Amino acid sequence: MAKILDCTLRDGGYYTNWDFDKSLVNQYLESTNNLPIDYLEVGYRSIPMKGYLGKYFYCPIYELEDIRKRSLKKIVIILNEKDIRVEHIKDLLGPIVGLVDMVRIAIDPEYLGRALVLAEGVKKLGFEVGFNVMYMSKWKQYGDFIKELKNVDGIADYFYMVDSYGGVYPEDVIETMNLVRENTKCKLGFHGHNNLELALINSLTAISQGIDIIDATIWGMGRGAGNLKTELLLTALNSKEGLDVDFNALGTVVNSFDTLLKKYEWGTNLPYMISGSNSLPQKDVMDWVTTRFYSFNSIIQALQNQKAKVEDNERLPIFESTESIDEILIIGGGKTAVDHAEGVMEFILSNPNMTVIHASSKNASHYNTIPNKQVFCLVGNEGHRMEQVFDNFGNFEGICVLPPFPRKMGTYIPSTVREKCFELPSVEFTDKFKDSHTALALQTAIFLNSSKVFIVGYDGYQDVQLSQKERDLTEENETLFSLFNDNISPLTSLTPSVYKKLKFDSVYSYIYEK
Amino acid sequence: MAKILDCTLRDGGYYTNWDFDKSLVNQYLESTNNLPIDYLEVGYRSIPMKGYLGKYFYCPIYELEDIRKRSLKKIVIILNEKDIRVEHIKDLLGPIVGLVDMVRIAIDPEYLGRALVLAEGVKKLGFEVGFNVMYMSKWKQYGDFIKELKNVDGIADYFYMVDSYGGVYPEDVIETMNLVRENTKCKLGFHGHNNLELALINSLTAISQGIDIIDATIWGMGRGAGNLKTELLLTALNSKEGLDVDFNALGTVVNSFDTLLKKYEWGTNLPYMISGSNSLPQKDVMDWVTTRFYSFNSIIQALQNQKAKVEDNERLPIFESTESIDEILIIGGGKTAVDHAEGVMEFILSNPNMTVIHASSKNASHYNTIPNKQVFCLVGNEGHRMEQVFDNFGNFEGICVLPPFPRKMGTYIPSTVREKCFELPSVEFTDKFKDSHTALALQTAIFLNSSKVFIVGYDGYQDVQLSQKERDLTEENETLFSLFNDNISPLTSLTPSVYKKLKFDSVYSYIYEK
Repeated sequence: MAKILDCTLRDGGYYTNWDFDKSLVNQYLESTNNLPIDYLEVGYRSIPMKGYLGKYFYCPIYELEDIRKRSLKKIVIILNEKDIRVEHIKDLLGPIVGLVDMVRIAIDPEYLGRALVLAEGVKKLGFEVGFNVMYMSKWKQYGDFIKELKNVDGIADYFYMVDSYGGVYPEDVIETMNLVRENTKCKLGFHGHNNLELALINSLTAISQGIDIIDATIWGMGRGAGNLKTELLLTALNSKEGLDVDFNALGTVVNSFDTLLKKYEWGTNLPYMISGSNSLPQKDVMDWVTTRFYSFNSIIQALQNQKAKVEDNERLPIFESTESIDEILIIGGGKTAVDHAEGVMEFILSNPNMTVIHASSKNASHYNTIPNKQVFCLVGNEGHRMEQVFDNFGNFEGICVLPPFPRKMGTYIPSTVREKCFELPSVEFTDKFKDSHTALALQTAIFLNSSKVFIVGYDGYQDVQLSQKERDLTEENETLFSLFNDNISPLTSLTPSVYKKLKFDSVYSYIYEK
Repeated sequence: MAKILDCTLRDGGYYTNWDFDKSLVNQYLESTNNLPIDYLEVGYRSIPMKGYLGKYFYCPIYELEDIRKRSLKKIVIILNEKDIRVEHIKDLLGPIVGLVDMVRIAIDPEYLGRALVLAEGVKKLGFEVGFNVMYMSKWKQYGDFIKELKNVDGIADYFYMVDSYGGVYPEDVIETMNLVRENTKCKLGFHGHNNLELALINSLTAISQGIDIIDATIWGMGRGAGNLKTELLLTALNSKEGLDVDFNALGTVVNSFDTLLKKYEWGTNLPYMISGSNSLPQKDVMDWVTTRFYSFNSIIQALQNQKAKVEDNERLPIFESTESIDEILIIGGGKTAVDHAEGVMEFILSNPNMTVIHASSKNASHYNTIPNKQVFCLVGNEGHRMEQVFDNFGNFEGICVLPPFPRKMGTYIPSTVREKCFELPSVEFTDKFKDSHTALALQTAIFLNSSKVFIVGYDGYQDVQLSQKERDLTEENETLFSLFNDNISPLTSLTPSVYKKLKFDSVYSYIYEK
């Protein structure tokens, strides 16, 4: 029977930035004491890294002492080979001898040699040593790596095959196990990802082939689409192999992670499926899916581009402004741009020289009768939205601007507006969130040399509870507004908004003034 | 290459009660027009059934006409063999000749003979005929069914193996396909459920064995843990077999079901995994998981009982009251029972003859110093909660009541209170929600012959948006309060509450009175 390693805290930390409520951790340790799990990997140990990373990224001694006291299981921490060198071992691992049973090392196969040096140092301190070697679906292409495998013998206690992209099938597991076994006598492990919902069958296949250890996490919590679910593995082994499982303990620990699941919503979805089945990096996808402003379809589009190895589809004519524009109105996708459309329309019509920039085409149909110059910001998949908003482009009078080349998220242009598309030469006023709708709209305003910029339809979110996505979007817009305000010119919102960096006037006061 | 049948509207209807926004349906039809899907099953046709069932359970002619107009795919409806007889065919199917291409029949293998008669009638009208035969994991046990299979030839166009419990593995798929092929020449189909996240690998295995048609639904929407995800099947076939997939269309349709997914949260979880891997009926589990008041652990416990074929663990002494109690206070699990605990305590202490009933032990620790008689309602897994609330039961002075024998959700009793447990002889004042905490508490009050019943800690939910579970619980409690109020005696809440069927007094006014 294979051993089971649960790495919920370590791998789940990708979602929580490695902070977990202590009460949750205690519940986890108590419940797992009653479950047929052999090892618990509770986090990283690391030299100081830039930016905030939580408790379980560094695993301070006092925390490991407490875990050691509470848990009956073997305790594991992991090192990131790319950041840790043999000279760090004394500080990082010296103090945890006796607290931790196994040290794993996350290894890019290209650096197996360097990892072996590090591992020898770890081994000398008396720890079990696990090698977590990434990108198993590509190992056949690394001839040198395969040859080096024999050097693992006697150093690593477990040699893990990691399905980094979540795209391997049961037959690939068998093939890779055979490949590795031809080259090393080391005990083998498997760490599966669930992009294609194959983590269970891949793990069971590995078990049927005599694998020695399997990784899993509660609810599959882990980077991107997540991992094999501990509860699924235990339930399957209970019914298939008669593994003794205390389902009350299992139910309790699964239930205790429910709040985090609802908050972070990890698990597979179409973007992760596409990246998994095409061996595209999970990291970008997780970034796009969880914390940025991209629509679902923009992500699909970007992945299609990556898959086709198209960094970007094409170069477009550069956007140039031949004249200085007096005033600009930027229309956002918020509800106030609809609620106050009549007032805004009157304001626009009384300023025939004002250029209107649609940050999103979401509300553009409410303004399609105006004679003013109009600019549409085409970020990511916005072209698809435009097609839905405008039934046909027969009388499309505006122009479209796109982010500078190359565009990570791709270039989709409805064929009927193709001749009216331009790319910005650069986005200069900000070094963050450069490819957002708002950055594009503001940079366009800068290139148009406008003296005064109004905005409407940037409502922000007023709910007490914001989703992570809504919080991020708010933060991004605040950052962009602030940079523009401070360095370029004041931004005046003419509709209600919760953004703090905006100045306010009422659109109705402007109409009155006329 | 196997054909693909998407049955999102039919199978997803188990969550929406077969109502879907027309705009969502139109988006679904438009997107699927651009996807390599062959058949769309859009709902049931049915004779009138009791209770409300939505549009796509009956599929009125005008709706099928509209679908026919919008869709380029073959259109399918399904009949429930258990409800439909050959004499219903004329009315149900006569008017949809030309609108629908295939009629499927959901069949219990025990009634294959009866289904064949029905199918002949369907076939005569010119429809393609699909047999969706349930419980494939148990077919080996049905000798007669296997012998009858030859009669399917010439009547069914597709003979589907349905993994009703969601517990079959790839090797079972192969075995069952072989078993069926030995007995019929009919083209074969597979309908997989995703309890163990095996729907994809089972379907791919069936395809590798030459299956003719595969079922899937968007996001896996379907009864219980749901089905094979259409987007997963298409993505896998795209990368493995080069199937041409328009990922923008796929992304659009997947995204359009996102709101329903957030609302109903279908998909697998530990209860579904347990039921799947032990061939326990999905229907109960879905009922427990989605619409009732059971805790996660109660469900686990109940499934453990089913698995062990323990209908109920034991008979307990019958709860009898030897005396007539003057007043009763029922304490619920709401926050007000904590916020106002001091006031409630004073009220209790000033009424030494009052019996206190803890509907849930959630708040009981706030009242553990009172000298009054105390009764604890042990529903489902409440015993586990009690153990957490009370560190030890050394000085446990109360008694526990459980629902009448047999208890569907099982009997869990902490060993230290075993001698103080009784079961109610019956729950009579209501014929609904008999095994809820509230029903148990109110029935106990009835058996205690009390003249006056107060309640605290029944707050209800005040959020604008309630989850389905919260809405159901509110409705259940309102029903029970109303029955008790109208037929037994008035119920007075002494803490704030949103329940409309309660009378109100302030706990502080009672203290003042003394």
